[in-house]
Amino acid sequence: MKQHPHPPKDAITITGVLAALSDPVRLDIVASLRQGERASSGFDCSVSNSTLSHHIRTLREAGVIVHRKEGTRCFVSIRQDLDELFPGLIESVLRFAPERTPA
Amino acid sequence: MKQHPHPPKDAITITGVLAALSDPVRLDIVASLRQGERASSGFDCSVSNSTLSHHIRTLREAGVIVHRKEGTRCFVSIRQDLDELFPGLIESVLRFAPERTPA
Repeated sequence: MKQHPHPPKDAITITGVLAALSDPVRLDIVASLRQGERASSGFDCSVSNSTLSHHIRTLREAGVIVHRKEGTRCFVSIRQDLDELFPGLIESVLRFAPERTPA
Repeated sequence: MKQHPHPPKDAITITGVLAALSDPVRLDIVASLRQGERASSGFDCSVSNSTLSHHIRTLREAGVIVHRKEGTRCFVSIRQDLDELFPGLIESVLRFAPERTPA
């Protein structure tokens, strides 16, 4: 099964990551991934599926998340190498993300 | 002398701050203010004056910087209350800002 393309680590920029996180829905998605990978169908972001897909794509293209396919399902998680590139950044930003966790 | 309007502290949002910081020139401006207030005429950002004014306005409207007039000069500094709102955030982001300091 064809996987989504992800940027190489050295193409990830601090401004690109900040832009990706600068939307409430996207910040909410990333905050809900703090505990680990989730099925992308499991989000209740009060937005349409196409809007959610757009946000997940934006996060993937900025290098914030990994979006992998497994069978007919998709899973998203925070990129492991993001914290190597920008140590502490995501944690620092997520401290101020809304408390609510998408169902 | 009329001063520029600034948003009240409770109108500053994490996503607004991240959006303001998500541009290389703006991140550079804020990084150069780590040491304190600077005259806005003192920046050499390799951008035109009008572009610089636009970036400074964006940072001011997002609640990241204070832009004050004194006589015919303008001074910019990082908002003191930003670190009260989002403790550690600016420092965490600026760790990954380019090293160069605008002249």
